[in-house]
Amino acid sequence: MNIAILFGGSSYEHEISIVSTITMKKVFKKSNLLFIFVSSDRQFYLIDVKDMTSKLFSSGDYKKCKQITLKKGGFFIDGWFGAKPVTFDVALNLIHGRDGEDGKMASLMTFFSIPFISPRLEASVLSYNKLYTKFFAESLGVKTVPYEYLSKTDERKITTPYPVIIKPVRLGSSIGVSIVKNESELDYALDVAFEFDTDVIVEPFIVGVKEFNQAGCYTNDWELSIVEEPHKEEFLDFEKKYMDFSRDSQVLAADMNDALKTKIQENFKKIYHPLFGGAVIRCDFFVIEDEVYLNEINPIPGSMANYLFEDFEEMIYRLASHLPKEKHITVDYQYIHSIQSAKGKA
Amino acid sequence: MNIAILFGGSSYEHEISIVSTITMKKVFKKSNLLFIFVSSDRQFYLIDVKDMTSKLFSSGDYKKCKQITLKKGGFFIDGWFGAKPVTFDVALNLIHGRDGEDGKMASLMTFFSIPFISPRLEASVLSYNKLYTKFFAESLGVKTVPYEYLSKTDERKITTPYPVIIKPVRLGSSIGVSIVKNESELDYALDVAFEFDTDVIVEPFIVGVKEFNQAGCYTNDWELSIVEEPHKEEFLDFEKKYMDFSRDSQVLAADMNDALKTKIQENFKKIYHPLFGGAVIRCDFFVIEDEVYLNEINPIPGSMANYLFEDFEEMIYRLASHLPKEKHITVDYQYIHSIQSAKGKA
Repeated sequence: MNIAILFGGSSYEHEISIVSTITMKKVFKKSNLLFIFVSSDRQFYLIDVKDMTSKLFSSGDYKKCKQITLKKGGFFIDGWFGAKPVTFDVALNLIHGRDGEDGKMASLMTFFSIPFISPRLEASVLSYNKLYTKFFAESLGVKTVPYEYLSKTDERKITTPYPVIIKPVRLGSSIGVSIVKNESELDYALDVAFEFDTDVIVEPFIVGVKEFNQAGCYTNDWELSIVEEPHKEEFLDFEKKYMDFSRDSQVLAADMNDALKTKIQENFKKIYHPLFGGAVIRCDFFVIEDEVYLNEINPIPGSMANYLFEDFEEMIYRLASHLPKEKHITVDYQYIHSIQSAKGKA
Repeated sequence: MNIAILFGGSSYEHEISIVSTITMKKVFKKSNLLFIFVSSDRQFYLIDVKDMTSKLFSSGDYKKCKQITLKKGGFFIDGWFGAKPVTFDVALNLIHGRDGEDGKMASLMTFFSIPFISPRLEASVLSYNKLYTKFFAESLGVKTVPYEYLSKTDERKITTPYPVIIKPVRLGSSIGVSIVKNESELDYALDVAFEFDTDVIVEPFIVGVKEFNQAGCYTNDWELSIVEEPHKEEFLDFEKKYMDFSRDSQVLAADMNDALKTKIQENFKKIYHPLFGGAVIRCDFFVIEDEVYLNEINPIPGSMANYLFEDFEEMIYRLASHLPKEKHITVDYQYIHSIQSAKGKA
C-alpha cells in the first residue's frame, strides 16, 4: 500500500511530528511510504525517503525539496507540461497539535477529496480542546476529573484545592503544563500557560494516580490495543514525551484485573464510536478508587501508538479500507429554476 | 474596500448561498465586490460581477468562468507566465451549511493566511452541530430548550411529550425539520431527517412561542442589531426561508420592553464573546414566561442579516479591521538540535 504521511505543520509540536514520522520508517515494513512535509509557514514539500532525517528539517534543507500544491483530488507537482499528481492510496495525518489535531488538516483532506487516516473535523475540534472534551465526555456518561476553566482575561482566582495541574486547553505533549503546589506558584504557572493559549483548565493534581492508556480504532470490528500503564515521574515533560514519540517496539500489557480492563475498554469505545471513525486514537485514563476517569484523548498519538499493537501495519491497512465516507450532496438547482419560472425568466 | 464573497459549496444550502450572495450586490454600495464560487464538486471559480445572476449557476455556465487555485496567501489564476493573485482586502464567507458553516472554509482561510469574515474553526463546529450548541450554551449559563438526541442506529423511542420538533443536528434553513404531532407521525419524520444527517435532536414544539432574533458582532465595541420578531407560520419551511435569504431592506425593531431586550442582548454577548470574533452571527431566541432560551445560532445568517443593521456596510469595514489574529508559532528546531548533539550527529 502507498501511504503518504503528512507531518510538520504550524504547531508547537512541529518537531515532535518530525520525530513521529521518522519512527514510521521502521514501523511500516511492507508499505511504500511517501512523505509530505508541511513547513511552519504552511508550504507543502514532497520529501524523498532517503532524505528523511531530522537534519533535513533543522538545517532548512527541506526547502530544496519539491514544493507541491494541494488541489481537488490530491497533491500535485506543478511543471511546464501541466500538473502531475502525487499518487498514493491513503494519507496518514501525523501532524501533532495545531493544523493536524485541531481540524484543519481534516478539513483540507475532506474538502479536496483525499482519503485520510485521522480524526475527522468534529472529532478533531472536540478532542483538541480540553474543555470541549469535558463537555463531550460528560454527554456520553464518561467520567472526567473535576475542573475549572480560566481565560486570559479572567480574574486569576481558583477554588480547586492545591496541588493543581494547569493545562492550556489547546496543546498536547505537556507543553505549557505546570503542577502548582500552592497559591504562590499560581501566577507564574498561569503566565507560562497563557504564553501558549488564551484559555486553561485547572484540575486537582492527584499524587500517584494510576494511569492507563488504551489505543484503538474501529475497522470492520473493534481493534483495541493492549492497555499500557505508562511509567512516569511527576508527569512527563516535553523532552521526555519527545523521546516517547519515537517508540517503535511493542510494550508489555499492564498487569490488571479483567474487570478494570473491561471498564477501560468500554469507556474507550464510548468515546471512539462513532465520532472518531477513520482514526487511531489513544485515550489516557485515570483510575481512582476503581472508577475510570478520562484524562485526555490523543487524537493523533505520538508515533500513532504503534507500540501498543501487535500488527500495527496490517491494522492500518484494514482501517484504510474502512474510512468514513462523506455524504454526497446533489445540487440540482431546482429552487433557482422554480424562482426563475415564477419570475418568468426561465 | 475590495471584498471577495465566497459562496456555493458542497451543501444542501448551495442555492440559498447563491441567493444570499446576489443580494449582497444591493447591500454593498461603496465596495468593490469579487465573487468566488465554490461549485458543488468543490472547484473554485472567479465570477465577474456582470455575470452574477442565478441563471449562470443553474445553467452550468459558471464552468466557462475562470477557475482559480487556493494556495498560501490567497487565490491564484494559473497561466502560462505563472500564477497571478486574485487581490482583495478581505474574504466574506457566505457559504451556508456544509463547507461554509461546518468549519472547512474557516480552516482553509486560516491555513492559507487569507483574512476572512466568518466564524473561526471552533466556533463553526460548535454552532453547526445543534447538539454541540447545547453543550456550549449550557456551559455559559445560557438556557436552551430541553432535548433528546437520536442517532440513525438508535431505537426510535422518544420521551418528550408531543408535539415535538425533529431537527437534523447539522443542517440549517429548516431542511429535514418536521413537527410531529403524535407517535404515528414519528417514523416518517425521522426517515426525512435521517435522509440528511446521521443524528437528530428532538425538542418539545411550543405552539405560538415568542421568537426574537438578535444579530451582531464585536469590532472595537459591541455592534448589536435591532431585535426582530420574525413573522412566521408554524415554522418557516425551506421555500419561505429561501425567500428570506434575499432580504435587503431594513426591518422594524420588535415592540418589546427594555428589560427583555437587555436580557436578549446579554445572552447574545455571552454566546458571541470571544468564540465568534471575526463573524457576524444571528442568534434566535425563544421567550417563555419571561425567560430567554437560545433556539439556535446562525453562524452565517441568510444575507448576513444585513436587514437588521442600520449601516451594514460600514460595520463590515470595521469588522474587517478587527479580525482575530492567529498566534504566530516560531519553529526553531531546538529540540532536534539537542537530540542531534546528544547523538553526536550535529
